[in-house]
Amino acid sequence: MSHLRFIITKIGYNKEMFLLFNNKPQIVDWYSIVGKKEGQGPLGKYFNKIEEDEYMSGSSHEFAERKMFESAIKGVLKTAKSADAVFAGDLLNQIVSSSFAMREIALPFVGIYGACSSMALTLIMASMFVDGGYGDSAVACVGSHFATAERQYRTPLEFGNQRTPTAQWTVTGAGAALIKSRHNRSSSGKTAKNIFIKSATIGSVIDLGIKDVNNMGAAMAPAAIQTIKEHLKKSNAKKNDYDAIFTGDLGLLGEEILRDKLKLTTNYYDCGHLIYDDNQDSHMGGSGCGCSATVLNGFILNKLQSGEYKKILFIATGALLSPTTSFQGETIPCIAHAVEIHAS
Amino acid sequence: MSHLRFIITKIGYNKEMFLLFNNKPQIVDWYSIVGKKEGQGPLGKYFNKIEEDEYMSGSSHEFAERKMFESAIKGVLKTAKSADAVFAGDLLNQIVSSSFAMREIALPFVGIYGACSSMALTLIMASMFVDGGYGDSAVACVGSHFATAERQYRTPLEFGNQRTPTAQWTVTGAGAALIKSRHNRSSSGKTAKNIFIKSATIGSVIDLGIKDVNNMGAAMAPAAIQTIKEHLKKSNAKKNDYDAIFTGDLGLLGEEILRDKLKLTTNYYDCGHLIYDDNQDSHMGGSGCGCSATVLNGFILNKLQSGEYKKILFIATGALLSPTTSFQGETIPCIAHAVEIHAS
Repeated sequence: MSHLRFIITKIGYNKEMFLLFNNKPQIVDWYSIVGKKEGQGPLGKYFNKIEEDEYMSGSSHEFAERKMFESAIKGVLKTAKSADAVFAGDLLNQIVSSSFAMREIALPFVGIYGACSSMALTLIMASMFVDGGYGDSAVACVGSHFATAERQYRTPLEFGNQRTPTAQWTVTGAGAALIKSRHNRSSSGKTAKNIFIKSATIGSVIDLGIKDVNNMGAAMAPAAIQTIKEHLKKSNAKKNDYDAIFTGDLGLLGEEILRDKLKLTTNYYDCGHLIYDDNQDSHMGGSGCGCSATVLNGFILNKLQSGEYKKILFIATGALLSPTTSFQGETIPCIAHAVEIHAS
Repeated sequence: MSHLRFIITKIGYNKEMFLLFNNKPQIVDWYSIVGKKEGQGPLGKYFNKIEEDEYMSGSSHEFAERKMFESAIKGVLKTAKSADAVFAGDLLNQIVSSSFAMREIALPFVGIYGACSSMALTLIMASMFVDGGYGDSAVACVGSHFATAERQYRTPLEFGNQRTPTAQWTVTGAGAALIKSRHNRSSSGKTAKNIFIKSATIGSVIDLGIKDVNNMGAAMAPAAIQTIKEHLKKSNAKKNDYDAIFTGDLGLLGEEILRDKLKLTTNYYDCGHLIYDDNQDSHMGGSGCGCSATVLNGFILNKLQSGEYKKILFIATGALLSPTTSFQGETIPCIAHAVEIHAS
């Protein structure tokens, strides 16, 4: 860890952008669909749907992934019926899960790529769209699938590769949130509470030299540190002002780095840590953009709805590599975006 | 063509989203860098930089692509020095050209994926960001490289594959525009004119069943038709109200389809048609998201600056496929986004 500690001291050169949403864009509905393993985990009861069939009755895992997107978007629009735009992203090359799902959904579509930071990034863009008055409602939808991610980033499952100790397990699942302007919230959604996006921070890319594609937690932790520090500073808040601070999928190792460097205590959780039990053989925990997407649109928003949380900070981190860049010997650029959500 | 004509009649089910920018976000500066072939084409004199070395002194074409992004962003920020956010996208898996360039640029970064529609989409997002008052300035940057696109989507150049008659030639180049709020435009930029983004239309995905990955023009034309129709309707405009209407990279065949179906005449151009001469062996013309990006940030904005154009409509189209989806037998989902730019 001493090498890591040394390079982390370099943090502080980059710039982040703090956004305040004056019109309180409302999260009026949310939906999550997950795979069998995620359904068996400790958060199982918070998800709307647990899909036992990893192919979702299709002939490829890629098909299943896009069906989860369709399911999540249709699920979140069940009451509202429609939205003015969908902001979506996934991990597959050319974000085909989002695009092919949007072929069926046929609503205005903005494709976002932020790797595992995508849930925060789509939420921020959807909030800008609604808060700025460009539309009355927008969906933010993000997801991933264990088998498609393994095939694309590492090796196909049939290869039976052994996983390294720092590896994480890509979550099979998709989550979607419906954002509405305050004046139009009454027409849809399950929420009696006033749940709204107060502010956000768009992060910048940071790369401290990690090359190990099986150690995303260590690669992404510096981005989370940078964005959280900036968000606290710009929003004039202290870390204990939040009922909970969630990172996306740093996993057990990244969580430990973050906890150590930011002196975080009992109000800090990592979605990748929360989603699987220790006995589920996920090594360092969950990852993939479906991880933070399903935990947000399952567990976290339900806790805001129930009143258990009143103010949370959600930081999704992304590792912006590709297999090509790794083969070419490049290190891993990372980013983190933060979204502050309040309930009243 | 009869089959094509039949399926095009299906257009009209999808929804598009019209955005009006009340605060007139200004395009205060723009920059384009292209490769040798593009520099030798008819628009050569409009580009800021022509890079003769396809590797840009690096060891891979991927390296060269990301260097073009760095060059374009640094070029557009030469006077302004900085911006509050960068909206960028490219064609490579996991948009690594954008992400790796942003590692050097170190500004807040939003990754966008819209395939060849990315220039319009990044412009729309940057306009929302500035117009909505979330930041004072934003860069929209998009690009592509012939060799990286061939390797990823078709075959590596060393393979020497023969190109089909309907194939297009991926443009090597990157373009960037700097958007500023009206009140802050004075501090930077080369423009004496007031060039601003008046409105935009976010398109939805349409797929009329084309499977031929070497015929993008035919695949994407229906998306352009849908978005242009909707933009004209919502902005209460007629096609001859514009000094010029530009599509991104439909190429000669797609351009012909569009001209035919929308009865477009002398004020309609396709960037893919404009960028190469007939004798440059590009078959149906230029493509790749660098095509519309460099033509916009070279030719088009210079014509708005010179006063030759006062009102233009820029529609970038994207084919949202991946090699994986094509191998799996899927057809090609497409999208188009429109941006209306005025000069006064």
